[in-house]
Amino acid sequence: MRRTAKNDLAGLGEFGFIARMARPFLKGLPSETWGIGDDCAVLPWNKRERLLVTTDMLIEDRHFIRKQVTAADLGYKALAVNLSDIAAMGGSPKWALLSIGIPAEIGLDWLDGFFRGWREASKPSGVRLVGGDTTKSPGGIIINVVVIGSVRAGREKLRSTARVGDVVAVTGTLGDSGGGLKILLGGGAKNQDEARLVRTHHRPRPHLEEGEWLALRPDVRAMMDVSDGIDSDLRRIMEQSDVGADIDLDKLLISPELGRVALSRGFDAVETAATGGEDYCLLVTVAPENFDKNSAAFERRFGRPLTAIGTIRPKSAGLRYFRRGRRTILRSRGFDHFK
Amino acid sequence: MRRTAKNDLAGLGEFGFIARMARPFLKGLPSETWGIGDDCAVLPWNKRERLLVTTDMLIEDRHFIRKQVTAADLGYKALAVNLSDIAAMGGSPKWALLSIGIPAEIGLDWLDGFFRGWREASKPSGVRLVGGDTTKSPGGIIINVVVIGSVRAGREKLRSTARVGDVVAVTGTLGDSGGGLKILLGGGAKNQDEARLVRTHHRPRPHLEEGEWLALRPDVRAMMDVSDGIDSDLRRIMEQSDVGADIDLDKLLISPELGRVALSRGFDAVETAATGGEDYCLLVTVAPENFDKNSAAFERRFGRPLTAIGTIRPKSAGLRYFRRGRRTILRSRGFDHFK
Repeated sequence: MRRTAKNDLAGLGEFGFIARMARPFLKGLPSETWGIGDDCAVLPWNKRERLLVTTDMLIEDRHFIRKQVTAADLGYKALAVNLSDIAAMGGSPKWALLSIGIPAEIGLDWLDGFFRGWREASKPSGVRLVGGDTTKSPGGIIINVVVIGSVRAGREKLRSTARVGDVVAVTGTLGDSGGGLKILLGGGAKNQDEARLVRTHHRPRPHLEEGEWLALRPDVRAMMDVSDGIDSDLRRIMEQSDVGADIDLDKLLISPELGRVALSRGFDAVETAATGGEDYCLLVTVAPENFDKNSAAFERRFGRPLTAIGTIRPKSAGLRYFRRGRRTILRSRGFDHFK
Repeated sequence: MRRTAKNDLAGLGEFGFIARMARPFLKGLPSETWGIGDDCAVLPWNKRERLLVTTDMLIEDRHFIRKQVTAADLGYKALAVNLSDIAAMGGSPKWALLSIGIPAEIGLDWLDGFFRGWREASKPSGVRLVGGDTTKSPGGIIINVVVIGSVRAGREKLRSTARVGDVVAVTGTLGDSGGGLKILLGGGAKNQDEARLVRTHHRPRPHLEEGEWLALRPDVRAMMDVSDGIDSDLRRIMEQSDVGADIDLDKLLISPELGRVALSRGFDAVETAATGGEDYCLLVTVAPENFDKNSAAFERRFGRPLTAIGTIRPKSAGLRYFRRGRRTILRSRGFDHFK
């Protein structure tokens, strides 16, 4: 197959690929339908509500390593990351479909574990498994999950609605999951702190209640979940909203565990917080004049503040990072699905 | 991993796996929701309509061989087989989601071809691609398609509604696709007849108009699409409806092309028609007193009759085949996703 710079998928990157492939499909979508480019597709449902649909594919040796994750953790996470996409739009999940490609050597013990983890992830929201596909896989384990949810019409939060001046904020700590992955790749947890980070990596909590709460607040403008790291994810809000952003790296909320593990293992906790990904908290932009009011209300409801980490700027600013008041650059980058 | 007869997925088979895994999930599904075990999940939507959702996973070297199928044919088929599941419930497709795992060596030429084929499959029904997931695959190409459709509430046709005495019928010829696969596996088409069978294998036509038409007729009781061959598919109607069936193999509609190719290649066209699979016509059971009337009306609408191939019997009869008036058995069996 011909492979020039332009014809190369890695060169194009995921955003480029989606932009290129999406073009012929976006033409003529009905006005009530949003699709490619957000956490979920938004579809007409009934008078009061819209349907949200999201899907994620997990491939062995790409998204997980079989020996490093229990079947139950994988079943939990496969569902949880899709629930997080529903949370990112401010919706509540209703139904799920699971396609699973199963290698010959996988036994029923493994599958029982997988479904046990899945059920644990489904419990808080009551999302129902209503269908799917099962097939033998000639290679590794392949999992595709679809979650369908609903949101009050007009309340859905998008990536495309950030405005210059908005406060950029997050609903939780960053980097624990990325730190957990580093520990897994480095041979596994050696103490309680490390075990906690690995557990966060395997059992992320989708911020469903936070998402529904934020969806009801008109001051919250753009919203998405942190799946690839804010360095990657913020660029999507920037692209969809046609804006830039300044991020104050000193304000990223870092857990005490991550701080201690980064110190002892010799990596930069702040870099991990910005680029590690898979945090599955929510990234929002909020009208600046009412940020403090909203953050305080969030704290009353959830016991922790909405954490401001930066400001939406004009597009020409691009994405700028600051540390101790001075501009800086990140050495690593957020996850790109084609790199 | 422990592997005993009971703990073995191939031993359990796909039906057994679904039955085992589905049990904890079916408990407590709301009464308007049908899920696991039919062509689509049926979900509440609005007053007049129900949502239909279906998903299929296609894995390279399991469901297709890259060198033996063009990107465009694969894109066409990936969507078409899911549209067929919507047809099988009597619905009309509305939206689609595509997850695709792409190996590093796949270029944009291939992807452009894939989406060209996809768009061709989407044209007759106008189904819209509204979302999906793209990721790099460390192994082969992986495709997961979801189609969401709708059906008038109460008109959806299920697998579980066949009654003893019903006529078993199909909406088209059987075995062309299975014959096409034999030709592909044997090195490719050598004449026009063979090329036609290969094309049917790569470009199956989902019977959407037939499905919608049949859904409006109360005499049509159970319905599904022929994806794994009637030998496999009929067993699903039997299991879901708690019945048996007699099939007259002489009545299976075999195309002149398949007849000639089977003769020249030395395989049994009737066996291929019963077990080849991927025909994607519809398999229905019809109230016997009104079968002739319905078949004639079908012929007026579609230019070919609804073809009776057998009769639904009590469960104790099992699945019995007849040829030239005498009981017979098939040497091959329908496709099982775990064998």
